[in-house]
Amino acid sequence: MAAVLKGNAVIGQSGGPTSVINQSLVGAVEAIREMPQVEKFLGARHGVRGIINEHFVDLYDVPADTLEAVANTPAAALGSTRDKPDKADCEKIFHVFEKHNIHYFFYIGGNDSSETANIVNELAAEAGYELRTFHIPKTIDNDVLITDHCPGYGSAARFVASALMGDDRDSASLPGVKVNVIMGRHAGWLTAAAALGRYDDTCGPHLIYVPERRVSEDRMLGDIDDVIARLGRCVLAVSEGIEDENGISWAKKIAEKIAAKIEYDDFGNPLLSGSGALGDHISRLVRARLDSRIRNDSENLPTSGRTRVRADTFGYLQRSFAGYASKIDQAEARLAGRKAVEFAMNGDADGSVAFQRTGNGADYGISCVLANLADVAGGTKTMPDEFLADNGRDITDAFRDYALPLVGGLPRIGKLT
Amino acid sequence: MAAVLKGNAVIGQSGGPTSVINQSLVGAVEAIREMPQVEKFLGARHGVRGIINEHFVDLYDVPADTLEAVANTPAAALGSTRDKPDKADCEKIFHVFEKHNIHYFFYIGGNDSSETANIVNELAAEAGYELRTFHIPKTIDNDVLITDHCPGYGSAARFVASALMGDDRDSASLPGVKVNVIMGRHAGWLTAAAALGRYDDTCGPHLIYVPERRVSEDRMLGDIDDVIARLGRCVLAVSEGIEDENGISWAKKIAEKIAAKIEYDDFGNPLLSGSGALGDHISRLVRARLDSRIRNDSENLPTSGRTRVRADTFGYLQRSFAGYASKIDQAEARLAGRKAVEFAMNGDADGSVAFQRTGNGADYGISCVLANLADVAGGTKTMPDEFLADNGRDITDAFRDYALPLVGGLPRIGKLT
Repeated sequence: MAAVLKGNAVIGQSGGPTSVINQSLVGAVEAIREMPQVEKFLGARHGVRGIINEHFVDLYDVPADTLEAVANTPAAALGSTRDKPDKADCEKIFHVFEKHNIHYFFYIGGNDSSETANIVNELAAEAGYELRTFHIPKTIDNDVLITDHCPGYGSAARFVASALMGDDRDSASLPGVKVNVIMGRHAGWLTAAAALGRYDDTCGPHLIYVPERRVSEDRMLGDIDDVIARLGRCVLAVSEGIEDENGISWAKKIAEKIAAKIEYDDFGNPLLSGSGALGDHISRLVRARLDSRIRNDSENLPTSGRTRVRADTFGYLQRSFAGYASKIDQAEARLAGRKAVEFAMNGDADGSVAFQRTGNGADYGISCVLANLADVAGGTKTMPDEFLADNGRDITDAFRDYALPLVGGLPRIGKLT
Repeated sequence: MAAVLKGNAVIGQSGGPTSVINQSLVGAVEAIREMPQVEKFLGARHGVRGIINEHFVDLYDVPADTLEAVANTPAAALGSTRDKPDKADCEKIFHVFEKHNIHYFFYIGGNDSSETANIVNELAAEAGYELRTFHIPKTIDNDVLITDHCPGYGSAARFVASALMGDDRDSASLPGVKVNVIMGRHAGWLTAAAALGRYDDTCGPHLIYVPERRVSEDRMLGDIDDVIARLGRCVLAVSEGIEDENGISWAKKIAEKIAAKIEYDDFGNPLLSGSGALGDHISRLVRARLDSRIRNDSENLPTSGRTRVRADTFGYLQRSFAGYASKIDQAEARLAGRKAVEFAMNGDADGSVAFQRTGNGADYGISCVLANLADVAGGTKTMPDEFLADNGRDITDAFRDYALPLVGGLPRIGKLT
């Protein structure tokens, strides 16, 4: 048994928030209150910046009722940050830690945040400051290394799956081509979740494109043709990070294309928010293709005018929508916060909390283990081949088995045949 | 008591679907099964087109369990249409009605669909064909005349309010300017619902722009400056149909600028949805303004780089998201379908089902009345002055009292102070 390290604790939240990042915060608060070696538990406002500025919230005195409400609220209750501390920042951080007698540092975040935690931790070791640093993973992208899956993913996946369940019915009501752009710069986990609500072979999304599988404009248009020929409509789920046949990001190419145009407007600044750009681009491609190819001769297509082509970019709703989190995800995120504290208090290792799956399907369960911070820091877990269909435009049953337990149930769909 | 008109009945769904349009369908099916004067109840696939093509579903034999699943499924289970029948189409419709001995015609749709129902009905009268035509209102836009509110609105309002509740917390986590573009071409009802989850005076959306109140680019930018000065961040809710100081649609001007072609549907409505152009445009405006004006000197703004400016266009999720409908809206939509049948069977008037509010707040309730089809057809109900703040960028408590009962409850938000 490790020697008891007495001292205060600090916790921060970092990176893009999720629907359940506050569950981990509250899980840590509840666990720390049971630990006699910690007198004060401070919440840092806006991550490492709040530490540097000594902008803290006392988490010991928050009433249980408020904590429960906070746990169920999306986004970071302490505030988040995109800052990555450099060496000078870290020196300031140690100074603040010493001043407040802080020896436990919990950081809830994604792979960038685990890197931050790792930097602080390594510099603390160099400076001879006794610090136990724990990373509590969160990200809707599900791309943190080591862990089976990441708190935050299940709720975002539930949102995306439910959105596509409704969107598929909407598309069946008013047939056409519907493009849905889903978050995921480097990994397709969230886009793949679009398929979780499919219940038969006419159900969309009919085409799924992820960053792990390159797709050219021509191939995408050909795929759409095939689906329209079969069903008279086509629903797509497209990762914002898809790459063309040469491995170049579609979004980047489009931004460059549009930036040239923007110089003619008087905006001066070529930097794009880019939020609707990829969806609008694919719409225009499909529009042009259909105008040249598809004749509106099906009963299921509008008799007047042209085939409907629409695009939605799901955007920040995927990570922040209130009231629709996965119950499993909520419970696991809470557990991750608690386990980080227990690992910190009952051992002398730093680390990142990771889930191991103990069973699947009806026997679904997880256990928590401690991963090395350095093994998690900064890396990106992309989808393995077994989760992606060979045709490059769909997921496999293995992915379905992996992801379905995480969303905590989906609505039932009824059809008239 | 009117003489009993014996014959078969047909029902169709038309226009943009909602989350509860199938509730009305199922409400009608359940009621018709109790009516001895009707032998067959046919569902027309894709509205009037399904009648013309005799593409019907027999609604008598659908099992109760399937009906219940259909009721809870977003979008039009029979398929929808944007077609507007002309005189020749209507003649085909009567021919089909005669052939199938159809004397009851139910049409679930918005204000355009009520116009369709009215055209069919008037031409039937001219042709001397005995037909009872009933319009069952549905639209997420809430802009149907006469009725207190419209089935479909409460669920879409719930989606938008919940989205903004999460988005406000996301914005507080990573401060900046966030633009949310919400459906509503001519009326601001749905955009106004963005405010329903606000619980204190720091809570977003901080600015609400609707088509009923003109706003210039300069005024919007000035409003954003004011909110940033007060809170260090700003969340906007913007109707897709907002107009500038001269009454010109922003979306139209932007489409012309980027040389995009605006599509129009059969009813002459510009298709503004399915594009991120308005949100991206506002983002670029704000970006340019902030770069020229705002210094990142607040602790709440990023220390590195520039202020975040992001835009989301909520798009079709607002009408089709599965699993998050308002329970009140579901029940009322079901009732509207049932009442249409009861009005049809127990009287000899045509009409449109309308809600009258019998109480508000804790005493909220509605009763159903029959409005004249011609009074509803094709009109648009915009928001009255009492629901919009004098400053042109907010809603009033009167609107809140009006809309809050319709969303069927909102999530609770917790904050650390």
